[in-house]
Amino acid sequence: MTSFTNATSMRRISDSAVRRLSAYLRLLRELSRAGRRVVSSVDLAEGSGATSAQVRKDLSHFGSFGTRGRGYPVQELRDRLEGILGLGRRWRVAVVGVGKIGAALLGYRDLERNGFDVVAAFDADPDKVGTEKFGVRVRSMEDLEAVVRDSGVEIAILAVPPSAAGDVAARLAEAGIGGILSFAGTGLELDGRVAVRAMDVTLELEGLTYALSGAGAADRGAAET
Amino acid sequence: MTSFTNATSMRRISDSAVRRLSAYLRLLRELSRAGRRVVSSVDLAEGSGATSAQVRKDLSHFGSFGTRGRGYPVQELRDRLEGILGLGRRWRVAVVGVGKIGAALLGYRDLERNGFDVVAAFDADPDKVGTEKFGVRVRSMEDLEAVVRDSGVEIAILAVPPSAAGDVAARLAEAGIGGILSFAGTGLELDGRVAVRAMDVTLELEGLTYALSGAGAADRGAAET
Repeated sequence: MTSFTNATSMRRISDSAVRRLSAYLRLLRELSRAGRRVVSSVDLAEGSGATSAQVRKDLSHFGSFGTRGRGYPVQELRDRLEGILGLGRRWRVAVVGVGKIGAALLGYRDLERNGFDVVAAFDADPDKVGTEKFGVRVRSMEDLEAVVRDSGVEIAILAVPPSAAGDVAARLAEAGIGGILSFAGTGLELDGRVAVRAMDVTLELEGLTYALSGAGAADRGAAET
Repeated sequence: MTSFTNATSMRRISDSAVRRLSAYLRLLRELSRAGRRVVSSVDLAEGSGATSAQVRKDLSHFGSFGTRGRGYPVQELRDRLEGILGLGRRWRVAVVGVGKIGAALLGYRDLERNGFDVVAAFDADPDKVGTEKFGVRVRSMEDLEAVVRDSGVEIAILAVPPSAAGDVAARLAEAGIGGILSFAGTGLELDGRVAVRAMDVTLELEGLTYALSGAGAADRGAAET
């Protein structure tokens, strides 16, 4: 697996560009499993919802791949993207909050398949503590810091109620967590040492209602009159 | 409830700006319930993870609110944002695919609280068809188009396996759906008539591993050396 070493050529890339790289990588992994050796920017674009020009631009940020007019070599590009995205290794993840969403995530096989090992789960409900969900034992919230440190948890998936999210996030940060993926709906205030991404169904639905209503519908209709 | 009428002053705003408006709205609703009448851009920023300058800039796109130095009037701003985001009315939603994620969403009370009525659910598994989940009857996938049309479903939450997502999305588009929120992981290819948002745990986690690894860690360390 190629790791990403030529740090001097790196450019700052946006969150949305990182998302597109993930989407390309997903497709490259499928193609690799299917035995494909070469892929065009057009195929990468179709599978990821980008334009082929965007694909070429995104990939050009990381040096040149393949030969003009002959497409990209699937395995080399896959390895390179895995290196760029930090996926040349496995990551240790904890699920904090084992309600409906947390429990669904514990049973979500794609995490393991994509390099994320769920090594711990936590809940505040004494009835859940000590039980097992999909092979992961649910621990008490009191043990959060100790388990995060002792098990070397790097990323926490935060699925506690919004009212608890701020406190729990602060405790995770204090325990030295690297990143938090939050389902808790509210903005987390952490210093810059912790990387944060949020997933929020209501927020995404509101993006759709915006697009389907007054201002957004006018946007989609294009012309500004 | 104020609806947004002065269409000529509207500006095209980005997905990330729409997300911030949703975050401000969430906070404004909380403040309104708590009886607060005025809020500062600093408070709005703190509760939403934006900067106060960003808050002022975002809100200035939609005309002037409140009095300089005295903050924003909570209810007026809330009503205005609800109008802009298309939330001055309720929306009819279907959950397509009642696996772990779909079932968790059917039980997710925040949808109703935020104006989204789940009026239908669908699954391909005959054992699930006819059962009820959180008060919603699970229908056969064969009835998808008919139910979407007859029940006036406007938004579909797509929680089917990735292999089925493309076909199901195309059927929803054909049935006249307005928007799709996809949990299905792959890029959906639909014409521009359907608004699409995607939620993807693996993709978000890869955003974190990027931030915690080589290229991203250098980004976070700021300097390009």
